[in-house]
Amino acid sequence: MTDAADRLIRDVQERFGPKAALTDRAALEPWLTDWRGRFRGEARAILSPASTEEVAAMVHLAGRLGVPLVPQGGNTSMVGGATPPADGSALLFSLRRMNRLRAIDADANLAVAEAGVILADLHDRAAAVGRRFPLTLGARGSCTIGGLVSTNAGGTQVLRFGTMRALVAGLEVVLPDGAVHNGLSGLKKDNRGYSIDQLLIGAEGTLGIVTAAALRLVPAVQRRAVAWAGVADPGAALKLLRHMEERTDRVEGFELISGDGLALAVDHIPGIRSPLNGRHAWHVLIEATSATADFDPVPMVQDLLGDAIEAGLVEDATVAASEAQAAALWRIRDSLSEAERAEGPSTAHDISVPVADMPRFLIEAKAAVEAAFPGTVASAFGHLGDGNLHFHVRAGRQAREGWTAREGPGIERFVDDLVTQAGGSISAEHGIGQMKRAELARLAPPGDLAALCAIKAALDPRGIMNPGKLVG
Amino acid sequence: MTDAADRLIRDVQERFGPKAALTDRAALEPWLTDWRGRFRGEARAILSPASTEEVAAMVHLAGRLGVPLVPQGGNTSMVGGATPPADGSALLFSLRRMNRLRAIDADANLAVAEAGVILADLHDRAAAVGRRFPLTLGARGSCTIGGLVSTNAGGTQVLRFGTMRALVAGLEVVLPDGAVHNGLSGLKKDNRGYSIDQLLIGAEGTLGIVTAAALRLVPAVQRRAVAWAGVADPGAALKLLRHMEERTDRVEGFELISGDGLALAVDHIPGIRSPLNGRHAWHVLIEATSATADFDPVPMVQDLLGDAIEAGLVEDATVAASEAQAAALWRIRDSLSEAERAEGPSTAHDISVPVADMPRFLIEAKAAVEAAFPGTVASAFGHLGDGNLHFHVRAGRQAREGWTAREGPGIERFVDDLVTQAGGSISAEHGIGQMKRAELARLAPPGDLAALCAIKAALDPRGIMNPGKLVG
Repeated sequence: MTDAADRLIRDVQERFGPKAALTDRAALEPWLTDWRGRFRGEARAILSPASTEEVAAMVHLAGRLGVPLVPQGGNTSMVGGATPPADGSALLFSLRRMNRLRAIDADANLAVAEAGVILADLHDRAAAVGRRFPLTLGARGSCTIGGLVSTNAGGTQVLRFGTMRALVAGLEVVLPDGAVHNGLSGLKKDNRGYSIDQLLIGAEGTLGIVTAAALRLVPAVQRRAVAWAGVADPGAALKLLRHMEERTDRVEGFELISGDGLALAVDHIPGIRSPLNGRHAWHVLIEATSATADFDPVPMVQDLLGDAIEAGLVEDATVAASEAQAAALWRIRDSLSEAERAEGPSTAHDISVPVADMPRFLIEAKAAVEAAFPGTVASAFGHLGDGNLHFHVRAGRQAREGWTAREGPGIERFVDDLVTQAGGSISAEHGIGQMKRAELARLAPPGDLAALCAIKAALDPRGIMNPGKLVG
Repeated sequence: MTDAADRLIRDVQERFGPKAALTDRAALEPWLTDWRGRFRGEARAILSPASTEEVAAMVHLAGRLGVPLVPQGGNTSMVGGATPPADGSALLFSLRRMNRLRAIDADANLAVAEAGVILADLHDRAAAVGRRFPLTLGARGSCTIGGLVSTNAGGTQVLRFGTMRALVAGLEVVLPDGAVHNGLSGLKKDNRGYSIDQLLIGAEGTLGIVTAAALRLVPAVQRRAVAWAGVADPGAALKLLRHMEERTDRVEGFELISGDGLALAVDHIPGIRSPLNGRHAWHVLIEATSATADFDPVPMVQDLLGDAIEAGLVEDATVAASEAQAAALWRIRDSLSEAERAEGPSTAHDISVPVADMPRFLIEAKAAVEAAFPGTVASAFGHLGDGNLHFHVRAGRQAREGWTAREGPGIERFVDDLVTQAGGSISAEHGIGQMKRAELARLAPPGDLAALCAIKAALDPRGIMNPGKLVG
């Protein structure tokens, strides 16, 4: 293996120059650990191609030599999906040099971005032509298009625009044998067999390397209304969502926040204060948008919330009166994780259940977890309208050093069992990576797992694509 | 093979009763030929399960005995996708007894339909709860959900709502090893590895049998505007579409019709007359809808078309003043194929190219085909906004008996070459089936084809699922 990896590094440097394979420890170091510091791996080099042709040549060579590759974009995986194996057998494969926006067509509402394009940059480029790429999430300043595709990323605007799966019009992919699949023409209809594009979305780099994506754009937001509502429980929150959806199709953000999650943010994050005067057990952050300047969603949201208060769905609500107020409301949502970390250790579970079942599930799961793990506090926030919440279990004030390592795995299995019994998913939007691999193997229906493994073995028979992740 | 098939028939009858395996010639006969009479096959029986459990048991047994199965829904394939092989080695596998609508939830905008549910019945059931399943097409009275999923069907409302791929929230599938994949919970977010659902959509029954689908519903149409416009050329038609899309998101049908296509309908179909007084080289049928009773799309479409006439995009236009007039306009669109058949033999090509390229492609392809095949007339109609047209080549008045058999394959290859050179698809919405199998093998990029074959071999190693179709 050592010889083969060295040979690959040398060949790549000879053919594509010194930049194409970095072996300097200082250059490697930041990419050997995931951003939260939970996983650490080893690798002798980062291969860093500058074009699809270089990717294809390197993958072909890696296949011939039997050297596994770990594709990496912004290294923002929540599940160790971009961290190499600890034994140093694989090389990192960075797409960051491939960061061109190849095309942006406002008429056709399409952009073609290389894998290394950073999400925030795509947002800016789309805005410059009067369009918007609607998917967004906390890591937008560093996550890349290739990673977003490979993890079928979600985020806060899924309610209206879907996950990456709904936003990808076509992919360019280097398959594990080095062949280039080119689906970038952005055909809206194409029924020539199984969709290679769809198979690669969410494959976490285990079936090939996404080198570019044709992405759908939508009209730019001209005006938005951002509101905050206090509700009695998650059931009321879901009824509020249905109440609004029946009356408008402009709601694109609908985030549930627990009262204690808000309290932590107020306690720990400077400048954050509660948007409402009274205390509420649960809160909802709502965003409605308009793509035309002549429609102001603010009065509409005010009216809808007024009706909801009258109907007893909402206890109290406020609508941001300025863009600054709107940003302040979103800042609360975006700081929940940070506030939680400041409070102490916790375990994080990215789960989904059918939307209608989520209110009941939340209440029951919280009670079950807190009973099974005395002293813990279960809390939740996230994308109620998608049936996807970040269900977190905090250690509690008495927790001792090493709590996460000691209690984490047991809590994870407990929560995953509850989710599975509820017909839900143990990974709604973060993927499997290395963190949830054992849980997937434990809980996936055997027939499904056999199909996933068969696909992996068929397309990557040498096992060179992102070893140790998903079913690899 | 004979013994094995007999054994399978006997076992199925013993376990599941005589209805589960019909061998009567009269019962078999209609299903041995495709509806257009282009393909004919042989089979000794139709297996006809009544439940998912029966499907799983029969598929498992067929796999053990090595007897291939040909899944069949409404038998409305355009490419021989549901017609068994001529050698009689396979059994038909009808999903028609599985025709229950298992659930319909207006709040969640979801229906769960078994594979044998007929599209028109789903339309009716959704309407009864104030919702709509938006996909529709000519064969709606006989095509089934299983077939629509398995061919990733399109139709006339794709512009706004997408193909089946966008409307499937989850699938129940019996995999070739007899395992049941259950994706019906309709999770909006689920990142547990490669999407088996997406892989089965458009797989034409070659990777397993779709037994049920969770399908997205949308609000019912309260009011609609249907309009007809005469335009100079396809480029003007596409500009008209962009003109409308910039001003409203309510356009859901936008069908291009050539002047000579309309003339054939007027000539051959009783009761059809041209909607406009003057002559126009090209026509567009437009439908805009409103989901609320308080918005009437008719004045909006009138205004938009008025502006388009002033801008020189449209030569003349009319908006239906009643539901009867609206239906009459759609009747013209729906009778184009019948009119063409009345005129004489023709070849049909279901093609797509990138939307922006379609106007130029159409003009150039028509000229190229008519030059290469003297006496023919190339014409087109269909879904311009999706980049998908039905490009048809008529024999011309002088054509002699046997024209289709003699000239068809050469014309098909010629058109497929043009489409491929233009970066398009030789099958936009009809699939590959047996009709386009050789063309797929000839024209698909070798790397893509290798991936499709690897997936097929991995999931169906015994080759029992719909042999002779796609890459099977």
